[in-house]
Amino acid sequence: MTAPAAVRPRRGRLAAAEYIKGVLAGDRVMLARAITVIESELAADAALAREILDGVIHATGHARRVGITGVPGAGKSTFIDALGLHIIHQRKENLAVLSVDPSSPISHGSILGDKTRMERLSQEEAAYIRPSPARNHLGGVARRTRETILLCEAAGFRNVFVETVGVGQSETAVRSMTDFFLLIMIAGAGDELQGIKRGIIEMTDLMAVNKADGDNKLRAERARVEYASALHLFPPTPEGWTPLVVACSSLTGEGLPEIWDAVLDHRQALESNGYLARRRQQQVLAWMRELIADGLEDLFRQHPEVRGHLPRVERDVQDGRMTSFGAAQTLLALFRAKE
Amino acid sequence: MTAPAAVRPRRGRLAAAEYIKGVLAGDRVMLARAITVIESELAADAALAREILDGVIHATGHARRVGITGVPGAGKSTFIDALGLHIIHQRKENLAVLSVDPSSPISHGSILGDKTRMERLSQEEAAYIRPSPARNHLGGVARRTRETILLCEAAGFRNVFVETVGVGQSETAVRSMTDFFLLIMIAGAGDELQGIKRGIIEMTDLMAVNKADGDNKLRAERARVEYASALHLFPPTPEGWTPLVVACSSLTGEGLPEIWDAVLDHRQALESNGYLARRRQQQVLAWMRELIADGLEDLFRQHPEVRGHLPRVERDVQDGRMTSFGAAQTLLALFRAKE
Repeated sequence: MTAPAAVRPRRGRLAAAEYIKGVLAGDRVMLARAITVIESELAADAALAREILDGVIHATGHARRVGITGVPGAGKSTFIDALGLHIIHQRKENLAVLSVDPSSPISHGSILGDKTRMERLSQEEAAYIRPSPARNHLGGVARRTRETILLCEAAGFRNVFVETVGVGQSETAVRSMTDFFLLIMIAGAGDELQGIKRGIIEMTDLMAVNKADGDNKLRAERARVEYASALHLFPPTPEGWTPLVVACSSLTGEGLPEIWDAVLDHRQALESNGYLARRRQQQVLAWMRELIADGLEDLFRQHPEVRGHLPRVERDVQDGRMTSFGAAQTLLALFRAKE
Repeated sequence: MTAPAAVRPRRGRLAAAEYIKGVLAGDRVMLARAITVIESELAADAALAREILDGVIHATGHARRVGITGVPGAGKSTFIDALGLHIIHQRKENLAVLSVDPSSPISHGSILGDKTRMERLSQEEAAYIRPSPARNHLGGVARRTRETILLCEAAGFRNVFVETVGVGQSETAVRSMTDFFLLIMIAGAGDELQGIKRGIIEMTDLMAVNKADGDNKLRAERARVEYASALHLFPPTPEGWTPLVVACSSLTGEGLPEIWDAVLDHRQALESNGYLARRRQQQVLAWMRELIADGLEDLFRQHPEVRGHLPRVERDVQDGRMTSFGAAQTLLALFRAKE
């Protein structure tokens, strides 16, 4: 194949046009290869990645993007497995499952998205499961996940899940790239949510009380009622959605249709009131501004004068010897001065 | 008086040393004048303001900083009036009351902190009430309020309230400059919190169900029980505090001692586990980083190439023609190129 002048692909890489064509045709192999280019850290792949994304972006935006987090032990993987099967067999739609796991060590795959934990789903042709890109910082993982969402949509996926462990800052990142946020929990002794960060409640659109089966069924229903009453006291989300609490079982499948109906209702409502489009716009603009701020901060921190003074200035501020404003003024003046 | 070479005060301004001396001595008149210098927009006052703050900062940090917000109509002013009197007469301590109100028009004072709304408190020698600085953007107001807190502490105030209307982004700003956050509400029909933003619940340390008197007393108590149960289901704050719900009356004074005890308990707990010091350090560092980021963004936006391309790039991102990452890369490259 001939490579266009703008992109000199490295060995093993194809021309951008090949990836674009394959992704848009829904070719699963080309999709996986395109995602690998996106996930690459190599400078040589950066231009290729941009070209691929530029070539497919017109075909994105249509999927339902659902963020999923869970209290440890709540059975998130089996839940996704069961819900995924429902979407594929009952709703006759396809599904991509991505993960954000910044703790994923570089040499091993993430435990999230591990196909053995979503055993039945990983056998389904209509499902595509991709483990978290391995990075040592959340920003890098989040960026690639966002771009992978776009690739999956361009490849024709109607539904994209992005799952996350309930620790670190992953949830805020995932929330900012999805339309609907789902929290998986299990019934306990009123302490169900003690393991997670407070801010997660605020961003949740639906709480699923999992393992509502067998001996646990009554307790799950009680927890559902408790949390539903509690949530009802709090203000609705800015787009006018009152979060639901649904009891469910990955074993029996009970509650899963209800949960997916809620996702669809939410989508419907947000499309009707224009909020979906508005939020998506806010998300991409906010993401751009965040990337710009990160880039500016890098420039700032690399400036020799700033680098020299920053540690001491931070200590002075921290120990109450200098005001934050005075410190900022001092450092910005150093940055602005000619090098 | 002779002005030190570093500061040439404008007409009507004293030397920095005068303000510093007066504030540290608890001179109310000098405190007010120092705050006026802080609040000034004039470039000529900026150096003087910094010098004053540098001169008093060693005497700050000891006060209890309490943020107060309220559902519209919940009686926030009369609450502060009554709680203030309790602190002064029952606890024998002093109190400064500041406000953050970015909507305050430049030519008129803020309706917050209006002495006629805290009638009894404004008569008290041990109370100092200052209306919100008038600015057209929150950042300017927030910065001056933070600095005013420092001045009030240096002047010997043991307790500093910062009140805010329940709209805009004021609450997040106030939360980031205080130790304890109080939400005033009234009993309704389960819809008590419908008027406020969801994020405020998450940052609240105590909900005060106000107007628990006369015919309303029973309803207030019912609301208190409902909200207490609801809050108990959610995770505690990172510092291990479970938010309280207390019914109170500005009329009868009932509940106010309990509320102030909670503020003291919270303070005690956070001092014991080292969290107060840690949080204060996080707050001042975060504030410094925010100011730096703002300064960098200003530089970025003023760059001629960036200014020229930014509107179109933002439209392209918003309309899905360009990825956020590609846009950020493009604009940062323009910024980094030599002017």
